Amino acid sequence: MAYCYFNGKIMPESEAGVSIRDVGVLRGYGVFDLLRTYGGRPFLFDEHFGRLVRSAAALGLEVPVSRQQAFTIVKKLLLKNKLPESTVRFVLTGGKAADSVHFNRATPTFFILISPFYELPASAHAKGAALETREHKREFPEVKSLNYLTAVKANNPLKGKAPFEILYTWQGRVLEAATSNFFMFSGDTLVTPARDVLIGTTRNLVIKLAKKEFKLKERDVSVRELFAGTEAFLTATNKDIVPVVSVNGKKIGGGKVGERTKRLMNAFCYFVDAWRADTA
Amino acid sequence: MAYCYFNGKIMPESEAGVSIRDVGVLRGYGVFDLLRTYGGRPFLFDEHFGRLVRSAAALGLEVPVSRQQAFTIVKKLLLKNKLPESTVRFVLTGGKAADSVHFNRATPTFFILISPFYELPASAHAKGAALETREHKREFPEVKSLNYLTAVKANNPLKGKAPFEILYTWQGRVLEAATSNFFMFSGDTLVTPARDVLIGTTRNLVIKLAKKEFKLKERDVSVRELFAGTEAFLTATNKDIVPVVSVNGKKIGGGKVGERTKRLMNAFCYFVDAWRADTA
Repeated sequence: MAYCYFNGKIMPESEAGVSIRDVGVLRGYGVFDLLRTYGGRPFLFDEHFGRLVRSAAALGLEVPVSRQQAFTIVKKLLLKNKLPESTVRFVLTGGKAADSVHFNRATPTFFILISPFYELPASAHAKGAALETREHKREFPEVKSLNYLTAVKANNPLKGKAPFEILYTWQGRVLEAATSNFFMFSGDTLVTPARDVLIGTTRNLVIKLAKKEFKLKERDVSVRELFAGTEAFLTATNKDIVPVVSVNGKKIGGGKVGERTKRLMNAFCYFVDAWRADTA
Repeated sequence: MAYCYFNGKIMPESEAGVSIRDVGVLRGYGVFDLLRTYGGRPFLFDEHFGRLVRSAAALGLEVPVSRQQAFTIVKKLLLKNKLPESTVRFVLTGGKAADSVHFNRATPTFFILISPFYELPASAHAKGAALETREHKREFPEVKSLNYLTAVKANNPLKGKAPFEILYTWQGRVLEAATSNFFMFSGDTLVTPARDVLIGTTRNLVIKLAKKEFKLKERDVSVRELFAGTEAFLTATNKDIVPVVSVNGKKIGGGKVGERTKRLMNAFCYFVDAWRADTA
């Protein structure tokens, strides 16, 4: 049986229900964060929980548990759910709003949902991914809000297959993918956007690792630059580093996984292995 | 006791709960529509239900009941809830998504929620409303989606009082208010935007009524034009026609309710009275 934490209690997931007057349901008003486990232990917990708190504050919400309380609940949930590897999703909404708009900040809806970790198809890491662009900037890009209309629509096409990821462009700039951050090599410099994007926890870790090996700049990336790039990749909690080999059917870096990207993928693996050994 | 319709059944509202794996809860992926009653009877039912169907289609969703079924359910709910006047809210999401993104089109979440009709403060109609602008265009402006981050945030300020309504501007144009359409007199022509806005049912009715008395154009309205306007007003299901007397603290039309606006408010009243007499 799957267990979740819902408004103060650990309970079977089937018993948790969000009120149909919740401003999260009626207006999509809320935030979330998502972390994964390695070896059954939460990875980058503080980074994810910290971002949840900041996302919440940006929408005038407050996470009703402390970092320590959240960590204890997550450990309990992981034990009860007995999955080999999990994703842990924190969701916070404004709570009930009788008139569908005005909620009470003191009574938010807060739940923690455990899912089996979905492995990407092996080909994503080995052969790289094909992206499609959409002209879109998220409403509060720095906030991990519940609003994913463009992304979910693209992932549920009426016909054909969804692309691996949608890459958002905005007025000539490359921003981020629907659920990932975007990096590319422009000459010998690794670049990644720093404004109008969600600042990913995996992104930040990859920046730290990459700085040991490459020149790195957090700066705007133009669409023109994208197609002149020699290597590109995505970072995300559920993807770590995934090479990008084409965008809108046009090859990036000759359509092959780049050598420098492979080096970073290895560095990421080493980091995780060391962390696992360290926390075992 | 309040009754709702939830996934095929009429039930007490307290028994209805949305799964915490619903793509509506996790990703704000859904649409809604809202109508009101006059004399306890649904007003503009076909227009609202038709728009719900179109909003759904735009997101690849399908309303799981026919117009006739929905009408029958709404009549039953209104009888059971025994309110003097109500709003009726249809909500449709993609339903459960185990991985938070991919849902099954055949099993959406669909519910109908009845609320007491909230009368606006009398001063809104008598003295007019003060608006504040935000630079914002909704993600799919023609779709009545569940995404209202900017609007709900503005309505729940950490300090001070929320404005009556937020007026969205976009790259020099006036679009719509957070939950209303916008009209203004530019010289002797009544103008209202027709692109990048939700096409309101009250808006369409007001256009029909206004055409009998005034020149009317559906066209882009510039922000510059807004502040040169002599009269302005909002239309919405829960507001009918509400005069606008200031925007960002600057008076519109000398800060008084315009005479032509009053004529339209009267025409609207007559229309509703005639409809009530006709359907009694």
